[in-house]
Amino acid sequence: MDPIVIVGGDAAGMSAASKLKRERPEREVIVFEKGAYVSYAACGMPYFVKGAVDSLDDLVTITPEAFVEERGIDLRLHHEVVGIDPEEHAVVVEGPDGRTTQSYDQLLVATGAHAVVPPFDGMDLDGVFTMHSLPEADAVRDYLASAEPESVAVVGGGYVGIEMAEAFHAHDVEVHLFEMLPHVMAPFGETVADHVEEHLREQGVDLHLNTAVERFVGDDRVAGVDVGDRVFDADLALVGVGVAPNTDLAESAGIELGETGAIATDAYGRTSRSGVFAAGDCAEARHVVTGEPDHVPLALTANRAGRAIGQTMAGDETPVGDIAGTAVVKAFDLTAARTGVIDEERAREAGFDPVSVTITASSRAHYYPGAEELTITLLGDRDTGRVLGATMVGREGVAKRIDTVAVALHEGATAEQLSYYDLAYAPPYSPVWDPVLTAAKVLDGNVG
Amino acid sequence: MDPIVIVGGDAAGMSAASKLKRERPEREVIVFEKGAYVSYAACGMPYFVKGAVDSLDDLVTITPEAFVEERGIDLRLHHEVVGIDPEEHAVVVEGPDGRTTQSYDQLLVATGAHAVVPPFDGMDLDGVFTMHSLPEADAVRDYLASAEPESVAVVGGGYVGIEMAEAFHAHDVEVHLFEMLPHVMAPFGETVADHVEEHLREQGVDLHLNTAVERFVGDDRVAGVDVGDRVFDADLALVGVGVAPNTDLAESAGIELGETGAIATDAYGRTSRSGVFAAGDCAEARHVVTGEPDHVPLALTANRAGRAIGQTMAGDETPVGDIAGTAVVKAFDLTAARTGVIDEERAREAGFDPVSVTITASSRAHYYPGAEELTITLLGDRDTGRVLGATMVGREGVAKRIDTVAVALHEGATAEQLSYYDLAYAPPYSPVWDPVLTAAKVLDGNVG
Repeated sequence: MDPIVIVGGDAAGMSAASKLKRERPEREVIVFEKGAYVSYAACGMPYFVKGAVDSLDDLVTITPEAFVEERGIDLRLHHEVVGIDPEEHAVVVEGPDGRTTQSYDQLLVATGAHAVVPPFDGMDLDGVFTMHSLPEADAVRDYLASAEPESVAVVGGGYVGIEMAEAFHAHDVEVHLFEMLPHVMAPFGETVADHVEEHLREQGVDLHLNTAVERFVGDDRVAGVDVGDRVFDADLALVGVGVAPNTDLAESAGIELGETGAIATDAYGRTSRSGVFAAGDCAEARHVVTGEPDHVPLALTANRAGRAIGQTMAGDETPVGDIAGTAVVKAFDLTAARTGVIDEERAREAGFDPVSVTITASSRAHYYPGAEELTITLLGDRDTGRVLGATMVGREGVAKRIDTVAVALHEGATAEQLSYYDLAYAPPYSPVWDPVLTAAKVLDGNVG
Repeated sequence: MDPIVIVGGDAAGMSAASKLKRERPEREVIVFEKGAYVSYAACGMPYFVKGAVDSLDDLVTITPEAFVEERGIDLRLHHEVVGIDPEEHAVVVEGPDGRTTQSYDQLLVATGAHAVVPPFDGMDLDGVFTMHSLPEADAVRDYLASAEPESVAVVGGGYVGIEMAEAFHAHDVEVHLFEMLPHVMAPFGETVADHVEEHLREQGVDLHLNTAVERFVGDDRVAGVDVGDRVFDADLALVGVGVAPNTDLAESAGIELGETGAIATDAYGRTSRSGVFAAGDCAEARHVVTGEPDHVPLALTANRAGRAIGQTMAGDETPVGDIAGTAVVKAFDLTAARTGVIDEERAREAGFDPVSVTITASSRAHYYPGAEELTITLLGDRDTGRVLGATMVGREGVAKRIDTVAVALHEGATAEQLSYYDLAYAPPYSPVWDPVLTAAKVLDGNVG
C-alpha cells in the first residue's frame, strides 16, 4: 500500500501524523515540510521578542528528531511539495537532492497560511518584518538588539499588532501602532476596541487609527513611515495586517476553494478530490452558530482537525468538529476575548435578528482585593433567544470565562439557559452571580 | 389582598422580595428577619477575619435602609417567625413589641441553615467559635486582637475550615487543623484532597487527619483541644463541621422534608403546602446530573431560587433551576474546584457506571512565565459517555475553568462533545488544548 503523505509539518500536519502512527503504527507516514521547523508555537513568538521567553527552542513543542525516532514518522525537512496529481495519487516534491515524485494512498494538505504582505514601497528595506515563522521572530529580536531602534512602527491593529506592540514596549522603545480602520481588533467589536485603545494609550503606545500606511521610507534601512500627510520616524517596522491561506498548491490540483478563499472541506476534512484532506490554516471549517463554512486560522482548530483526520485516515471516521471562533488576546494588562458571532450585520446575514446587551460587572466579589471591572457584550437572536456570541474585556478573569459562552454556543443554548448554569462562586474568583450569568439575565430580558 | 410574607432576610429572601417588588411594585411584601443583618456576604467572613477585608460593612451588599427606601420592601428586623398556619395562611411573629399574627397570600420560607454544633464538652468556653453570621465573624476578629492567641485550633476540614486556616495563618499564629475523616474537603474527592493537604503542610499548618476532637479544655477560656490520646494547646478554636438546614419552623407546620433533611420543593420552589415556597440553604434543589433532589447550600442557588420564586409570586411562573453542585475554594495559594457527581459510589447509586480519569496539564503554554500545573479528574458514564462531574486543583486558572464542565453537565454532554468545544487559547492563558479538552479526550478514550 502506498504511504500516507502529509504536506506541511506544523500543527495540523504533525497532529495528523502523530495520531495516525499511534493508531496504526504499521502505516508508512511521510511528512514533507519545506522549512526547518515543525510543530512550533507560532503564538509564542511575540513573547520571545518581548523577552518573556528566552529561547526559540522553548517554542518547539516536539523536535523533528522526536517525531522521527519516538513516533516513527518519516519527516522530511526542506522538502517542498510543488504539485499534486489527484488522478495518479502522487505529489511532486522538491528537496535538497532535486525533484522526485511520491505516490500516496491518502493525502493531507496542511500548507498553513502566510502573512499578508501589503503593496507598500519599502517592504524590502532592512528592519521591515512580518511575523509568521520562527526565523522571522529570531530576525526581529536580533535587529532589536543590534540596531537599537528608538522608535518602532507596528502596522496593523489585530492580534499580532497588539501583541507585538506589547513586546516592543517592553524594550523601552517608542511604539507607534497604525490601523487603517476606525478601531483596532475588528473581530472583537467596538466595545472591546474602546477599552483596548484606551489602555494602549495609557501604556504610552502612539495609536494612529484611520491611518493607512502608504510606504516605508529609508535608504537601506527603514527610517520612517509615510502615512500621506506625515512621516513618522521608525527604526524598525513590523507589519501584521493579516494572514491568508496557502492554497496555490491545492488550487492548481483542481481542489475546490470555498467562498472564504480557503480550501473547502466536509465535516471530516475531505476536499473535493478523492483521498485528499485539508486541515489547519489553509482550510475552512464549519461555524457552530451559522452552520456555514468559515475561515478562522487558529491553533486549536488546526490541532483538532489534524488529529481527527489522522484518526479518519487510520480507519476510524472522526469529524473535525465545528468552530466557534473563540479567541483571547493579551493586550498589556488587559485581556480581550470573543466567541461566536458578535457582528450584528453578520448575524443578520446568517438569518438571525440580533439583539445585543453590554454589562459591566466585577471579576471578584466587590469587597475582595484585586476585583476588577469586566465588560461583557452578549449577542442573541430576538425570536428564539439563542445566544449567538460574546465579547469580554478586563484586567482579570476574562480568558477562561469566555469558554462558558463558547460551550453554550456549541450546545445552541438560549440566554435563559445560559442564565441558569450553576457556575462557580467564591469571593476571590467571582461575584455570586458570575458576570456571564448577569449578562445572560439581561439578554434574556431583551429577547423571546 | 393579603401581603406576601417572606421568612428570612438573607440571599434567597431578599432576592425574592426585590424581584417581586420590581415586577409588581404595588404588592405589599413583608420580610421578617430575626437578626440585625440582611443580604450579607457570608462567604466573605473568612477574608474579614484574615484582614483582607477591612470592615464588616463591606460584606453588606445592600443595607436594610436601601431595601426599605429604594425597593419598597417592608423589612422587619429582629422579628422571628415562630409558627406557620398553612390552613389559615398566617404566620406567628415574635418581635420587639411582642407576639403578633400576620396573614399572607403567599409565603416564602427562607430560613437558611445553621452551623452544626458538635456535642463536645467545652463548646461554651470563651474563645470557641462557630462561623455562620456577621456577629460571629466580628467576635472572632475581636478575640484575635484582644486575646492574642499563639495557637489556634480549626475543627473541620471543609470549606470553612480551610478558609479559616488561611485567615488565622495570616495573623502569624500556629494553626492546627483537625479532620476526623482520612482527608479534608470530602466533596472534592481524594485527588484534590492530596494536593490541598500537601499545600497546607507546606504553608505550615499542622494537619491532623483521622483525628476526632473529643473536647475543648480550659477554665473560662479555651486552652487546648483533647483528641483522646493527646491535648494540643489552643487559645482560640473555630469549629466548622458543616451546616444543617433550618427546618424546625417548616416541619412544625407540616411542610414535608426531603430525604436530605432539607425542605422538599418542586421545580418552582413550591413546598407540600399550598401557597408556601421554600428556597436557599433550608431547601432542596434538583441535581442536574442525577435528576434527584439534593441539598447543596450555596450562595448562587439561594439567590437564583429566590429571584425565580419572586417572579413566580409576581405571576410569571419561573423555575428555580437545577444545581450542579459547582463550587470553588481558595486554600492559601491553591484553588480547588468541583462540579457534578465526582464520587463513584454516588454515581452508581444514580444508575451510572462511572469511569474516572485524572490528568495533569499546564495552566498556560508550557513556555509562558507563570505556567502552573493543573490536575483535573473527570468522571463519566461508561455506556453513554456522558460527563458526570469534575474536580480541579492548581495554583491558577482553576476557578473559571470548572465552569466549562458545569455547562457541559447542564447540557448532558458526552466526553466526546466536551473534547470538541472550541475553547479560548493564547499562551498567557492556556495550552492550545485546554486542560479540560485534554481530560475530555482521555475520558472519551475510556468510555463508550
